[in-house]
Amino acid sequence: MRRAPEPDTEPLWREAVGRGLRDLRRARGDRLADTAARAGMSPQYLSELERGRKDPSSEMLAAVAGALGVPVREVVRRAHADLALRAGSPSGPVMLAA
Amino acid sequence: MRRAPEPDTEPLWREAVGRGLRDLRRARGDRLADTAARAGMSPQYLSELERGRKDPSSEMLAAVAGALGVPVREVVRRAHADLALRAGSPSGPVMLAA
Repeated sequence: MRRAPEPDTEPLWREAVGRGLRDLRRARGDRLADTAARAGMSPQYLSELERGRKDPSSEMLAAVAGALGVPVREVVRRAHADLALRAGSPSGPVMLAA
Repeated sequence: MRRAPEPDTEPLWREAVGRGLRDLRRARGDRLADTAARAGMSPQYLSELERGRKDPSSEMLAAVAGALGVPVREVVRRAHADLALRAGSPSGPVMLAA
């Protein structure tokens, strides 16, 4: 069944949180394998989280945040900023420069 | 002042988001059954989300936000505010009045 069109094209939570996790990891200069090892997960799984392909459980989110040296609320703050930026205007998303 | 062990005391994402969803629903004067019906889920499942017992998928989160008349980013903003409030001070969480 086809869904009714959304009023805007807001990204999914997992996409916003994935971008936040990737940005935090890169800011540390970590490779996927570095952060994943500290978080106790595979680099493949962390990569899926960063690309917004998987919804992390709250425990996984806490593990990755811990591995990145930040509280969960910092990851949530970044995800919110990502969603707010992409919302752009009330009439829809803005195009972000690459 | 003694510094509390922060990582152990931060609430889980699903607990913070659950409180945000409950607050938004109550602010509308909705019963669980009202919001759940619009979101296409059972009142029991919505109740579990609100109590922080289940991690909502991104699709479920979008469905509940839509049923509450807000974008996902508003739910995320409230979850962040909840986590920041409970973090309270650099030395640990504050006790919230009931």
